[in-house]
Amino acid sequence: MTKLNLIIPLLILTIQLVNAQSVESLKIKKYTQKNANEIITEFSEFLSIPNVASEPLSLRENADFIMSMMNRKGIKNVQLLHGKTKNIPPAVYGEVLIPGAKTTLIFYAHYDGQPVNPEQWNQNLSPFIPKLYTAAIDKNGSNIPFPLDGKYNNEWRIYARSASDDKAGVDAIINAYDAINKSGLKPSYNLKFFFEGEEEKGSTHLDEILQENEALLQSDLWIICDGPVHQSGKKQIYFGVRGDTNLYFTVYASKRPLHSGHYGNWAPNPAMMLAQLLASMKDNNGRVTIKGFYDDVIPLTLSENKALLTVPSVDEQMKTELGINSAEMRDKTLSESINLPSLNINGMQSGNVGKMASNQIPTTATAVIDLRLVLGNDWERQQQKVIDHIIKQGYFVTSNEPTDEERNLYPKIIKVIRDKNGINAQRTSMDLAIVKKVISAVEATTKDQVVLQPTMGGSLPLYLFEKYLKTNTISVPIANHDNNQHAENENIRLQNLFDGIETMGSLMLIK
Amino acid sequence: MTKLNLIIPLLILTIQLVNAQSVESLKIKKYTQKNANEIITEFSEFLSIPNVASEPLSLRENADFIMSMMNRKGIKNVQLLHGKTKNIPPAVYGEVLIPGAKTTLIFYAHYDGQPVNPEQWNQNLSPFIPKLYTAAIDKNGSNIPFPLDGKYNNEWRIYARSASDDKAGVDAIINAYDAINKSGLKPSYNLKFFFEGEEEKGSTHLDEILQENEALLQSDLWIICDGPVHQSGKKQIYFGVRGDTNLYFTVYASKRPLHSGHYGNWAPNPAMMLAQLLASMKDNNGRVTIKGFYDDVIPLTLSENKALLTVPSVDEQMKTELGINSAEMRDKTLSESINLPSLNINGMQSGNVGKMASNQIPTTATAVIDLRLVLGNDWERQQQKVIDHIIKQGYFVTSNEPTDEERNLYPKIIKVIRDKNGINAQRTSMDLAIVKKVISAVEATTKDQVVLQPTMGGSLPLYLFEKYLKTNTISVPIANHDNNQHAENENIRLQNLFDGIETMGSLMLIK
Repeated sequence: MTKLNLIIPLLILTIQLVNAQSVESLKIKKYTQKNANEIITEFSEFLSIPNVASEPLSLRENADFIMSMMNRKGIKNVQLLHGKTKNIPPAVYGEVLIPGAKTTLIFYAHYDGQPVNPEQWNQNLSPFIPKLYTAAIDKNGSNIPFPLDGKYNNEWRIYARSASDDKAGVDAIINAYDAINKSGLKPSYNLKFFFEGEEEKGSTHLDEILQENEALLQSDLWIICDGPVHQSGKKQIYFGVRGDTNLYFTVYASKRPLHSGHYGNWAPNPAMMLAQLLASMKDNNGRVTIKGFYDDVIPLTLSENKALLTVPSVDEQMKTELGINSAEMRDKTLSESINLPSLNINGMQSGNVGKMASNQIPTTATAVIDLRLVLGNDWERQQQKVIDHIIKQGYFVTSNEPTDEERNLYPKIIKVIRDKNGINAQRTSMDLAIVKKVISAVEATTKDQVVLQPTMGGSLPLYLFEKYLKTNTISVPIANHDNNQHAENENIRLQNLFDGIETMGSLMLIK
Repeated sequence: MTKLNLIIPLLILTIQLVNAQSVESLKIKKYTQKNANEIITEFSEFLSIPNVASEPLSLRENADFIMSMMNRKGIKNVQLLHGKTKNIPPAVYGEVLIPGAKTTLIFYAHYDGQPVNPEQWNQNLSPFIPKLYTAAIDKNGSNIPFPLDGKYNNEWRIYARSASDDKAGVDAIINAYDAINKSGLKPSYNLKFFFEGEEEKGSTHLDEILQENEALLQSDLWIICDGPVHQSGKKQIYFGVRGDTNLYFTVYASKRPLHSGHYGNWAPNPAMMLAQLLASMKDNNGRVTIKGFYDDVIPLTLSENKALLTVPSVDEQMKTELGINSAEMRDKTLSESINLPSLNINGMQSGNVGKMASNQIPTTATAVIDLRLVLGNDWERQQQKVIDHIIKQGYFVTSNEPTDEERNLYPKIIKVIRDKNGINAQRTSMDLAIVKKVISAVEATTKDQVVLQPTMGGSLPLYLFEKYLKTNTISVPIANHDNNQHAENENIRLQNLFDGIETMGSLMLIK
């Protein structure tokens, strides 16, 4: 009795908060439900084409596949875009021009994927053989064949490299146009489509492609479909992204591996040297100790701070889900952390562990770090701060293998390779008229709150669009947050793919 | 003119210092020169049999090969020795009993090798396909076929796993007996032979083998043939060894790998945690900061300290050769360092580096360390000091994968696996009568000084011989110091193999 009394007012409260879903959005949903089988079959074929940077021919095959999808679905003027540099993975372009339209939206996703180490994937998976699971593998999902009757459970997941990042984006955008078209819905704005092939490599030639095709790419807003929805499962919009750049370290010790008995205690150990160097970069509370690391940061505006306050807290949920007791900086929330520059070790290696371990002193120790940047940071300046810190630790910094003379001269030697394609952070104002329309369009696809985030934690080279095309960008991600993006066992939850088509379709109908 | 004046007195001085090589030693040399082709061919066949712990059948094949060598060369009572535990790599035993002899020498070497990671070997090498080179590969040696005419240059090297450590020992001992036998030389003492098959695994069952075969293995002195000669190229004798034990660390962070953009700065990074933990174990001068780490150490005796003073300094030579500017502990010589306990990182790994690097936060970070011990240290107590230190750094230490409950409870979790087969250090007195005879016998094989070292840097379970057989041990190594023992590209210089046969033969003729 007592319980029932509590439930009734809660129900009323819930009903009051619910958005109405638009008629257009419901039409797109109906279309995707009806055509689920075709959509999944085609997507699965797309995921079967390897898309890592080391295989340029496969990347080109992906571009061809996308072109044929676009042509089949009525997108016009489909073509490959290049920069000045030849033989790069091209961007794929297409458009739907509406007579009399004065506003243009351009939809962005990327078709290349992060490198894969098949050995780290679940033993039943292979990065480029898409497999269907009843749930996430780490939540006891089991492998089932793709059903031929089109009856999909939306909690099922497809496992493959780029299932989420970012072939899901490409697929959702193209199918969204197909859905509105086949459902008899008419866009009011011109629509353009741009699918990049070098995003995971740091968008190495995006600047060239934008410059060479400036006229073709004119638009009022780039809508970026990449990254995950909110951890609460709610849809979200990002108004900016963090920047990113990598540094590659190799610490040198003895030229040949040594027996740890005969030389241990006397010969320098590169793993210990690297451990001490990396340890010097952060304090015990996860704060970066490199001089000036948090300088340059442009603080959030009042409206951005206000938006942050409405972001649902998922910190405790995420801690439980990830199996961690506390955050790296114990006094900072996830939202706060993402609005700060970061230093993260991606990988670290010296000698051997596991079955191949032996009692030796290794010759080198290597690490890869990435620096995420926020508005105000400059990627080259941020790299330099790290290098200056390394020099302060007594290192001779070189960009080559050390010579015998250098080995003789310096007690501590490190090779630092700078990523040459860093990207800076970007933030779009929440107060632009067209941005407000985007928010409304996404809200029209869901009964839930749409989370508004000043900055996405991940990185995209959005500052390039501002720089070369003098235009604005906004990010509307669609993937499930637990998609293992950038790592082994990447996957997409089907509901997220279908919701993504609906969201992208709704955006194409902005008036 | 001035130069010549200086050279003449130096020549006289040199002549005065030269030892005479014994007639017996010269006879053995003559025999090995004559039979170089047979010796090398047989040795090469021996090196072709894989001998890593993970392949027990191959280890058994090595034991069979050794038995047939011994039988062929006139060693008697050849047999395999086991402990209580069945199906372990057996020790190979043999003997030559001299009627009336009251003293027994037993010669030890081991036939198993360290694990191999073929990818780390030079691309022209394979660990179990012995190859002949004109010099060390890193000194521009080039591969040549094994000559069929028996004309070998003694600077040539054979590359293969265990070429030095320690099939060279097995081979030198057996061929030494063959050489004295065929040269008509007669031993005065009983000779026994013992070749172990689990040394690199930490001599897991040596205690059992010694206990089960106590009567058979009675002797007055174990002569251990393992490890390298002095870096100056001079022969040396070790009166003791360091002990050794391993610890295996795994630091845990998020249960699944995370995108470093979306979670970097918030999710704990296991590579950074491990780096900070390892860094906390040593100061910037290479001194271990773990509480009590240098306690328990029994100082060197007066005669041991005196011997240390006559050890030629090779520190500067080794720095140049290894391409390092300074020692880990800048105020300690190599000889001093080896007489202290050490903590050394053998391997360290988290996420990926190189081509497979991606912008992720790894789930775990692992490291293997080895602790070298000196007289007075106990391997279990030394392990415990390290574990106590880790706990002091705020870690929850477990020997299992952490449960969800543990993940929830503790901010820092580490799995520590203790090596269960640690070995303690051992030192034999330099003043025993039989030890003095050994020194003379080695001196009789060379014109140069014989270096006397209180302790070898490497480890052998010599304390077991004292414990179970109440006998003494002494180490007479033969390999070149730059043999890459325990690592990739292991090799033996032919001169060292031939000198080794001569040294072992001379020891077999002690009266």
